[in-house]
Amino acid sequence: MTKSDLHSNHCPTQSDHLCMPEEARKRARHRLSIARGHLESIVKMLDAEDVYCVDVLRQIRAVQGALSGASDVVLRGHLEAHVATAAERGDTVEMVDELMEALRYR
Amino acid sequence: MTKSDLHSNHCPTQSDHLCMPEEARKRARHRLSIARGHLESIVKMLDAEDVYCVDVLRQIRAVQGALSGASDVVLRGHLEAHVATAAERGDTVEMVDELMEALRYR
Amino acid sequence: MTKSDLHSNHCPTQSDHLCMPEEARKRARHRLSIARGHLESIVKMLDAEDVYCVDVLRQIRAVQGALSGASDVVLRGHLEAHVATAAERGDTVEMVDELMEALRYR
Amino acid sequence: MTKSDLHSNHCPTQSDHLCMPEEARKRARHRLSIARGHLESIVKMLDAEDVYCVDVLRQIRAVQGALSGASDVVLRGHLEAHVATAAERGDTVEMVDELMEALRYR
Repeated sequence: MTKSDLHSNHCPTQSDHLCMPEEARKRARHRLSIARGHLESIVKMLDAEDVYCVDVLRQIRAVQGALSGASDVVLRGHLEAHVATAAERGDTVEMVDELMEALRYR
Repeated sequence: MTKSDLHSNHCPTQSDHLCMPEEARKRARHRLSIARGHLESIVKMLDAEDVYCVDVLRQIRAVQGALSGASDVVLRGHLEAHVATAAERGDTVEMVDELMEALRYR
Repeated sequence: MTKSDLHSNHCPTQSDHLCMPEEARKRARHRLSIARGHLESIVKMLDAEDVYCVDVLRQIRAVQGALSGASDVVLRGHLEAHVATAAERGDTVEMVDELMEALRYR
Repeated sequence: MTKSDLHSNHCPTQSDHLCMPEEARKRARHRLSIARGHLESIVKMLDAEDVYCVDVLRQIRAVQGALSGASDVVLRGHLEAHVATAAERGDTVEMVDELMEALRYR
């Protein structure tokens, strides 16, 4: 990876800022849209007086799985574009502190 | 708890079926509506080219926490209304199998 | 389930106290012994200067899976012996509060 | 970080292999030793016929928390010593694939 490749990790509009890689952004957006639709359907399911608890638990679990999947897409993009290049930029400690904090209670 | 209290665990419309307690249903619906709004805002956040990965990870984490909270409301209602009364109805093994399956990968 | 079956949920020595069902206790003990042996081997693995981080992460993950399995054995025994009989004993709210607290951060 | 610092990420005995940073190794070993002692005490606790399920669930939960803490020590060391330097070594994709696999089901 050359110095100019590194610059592509920076935002198109703000050169002093790290940006999410475009492919990860689009894939995460797509997955989160689907999870939102699923969550919308659970809210409607709860309008029915005869809904059963365990069916709701299962549906919530499915949405949580979808969110974990979206989170993995974002994490992978972040590791590849920003964490793997930290030693080159010289901000390893800051990048790792920030990531460990975001992964806590995962 | 009397035999007639037990009947209140059954749906208003279908007497052979267990229903979610109304208070738990309304509270879970409210919490999931809020989580849906939060998730909607993350989808919009991902339209911006300069969004930062770790900010997205944190927001997804927050929605996962909200879903866990909603799940706890449903679980508590289920334990009180349906699991705690299982020995009285005589369906302990079925109720516990079903719940363990739904809690798996929690 | 008769009144005398209910008494079998109480400890052999202390009649005012709920006890873990014997089968669950033995199965949980067996699983936790195996997990302890696995954990012992990870501690030894960490004596070697050339151990690799990701191998350690994988081994810790495996022990966490084993602990979850043991926890499920205990939870299932508790639900069957103590939670499913709570309405009969009249301590539903206390039993559910206690369990929800123990499941938190699961 | 200079080229010679990078070499310190390699094992003292095997130059073609990444090694866990010594401080992380010692801290993780210490934490896992404590968790092993705690797990040993739960196994003993399960020898008593009158042990109560929820007490066992709480103790297993505490050990799981200790293992997560040890896992975080190892993960932080790995991110700083090996992932943050991946672009310099040219093995970013392999390192990230391996880490994502190890974090799965976390």
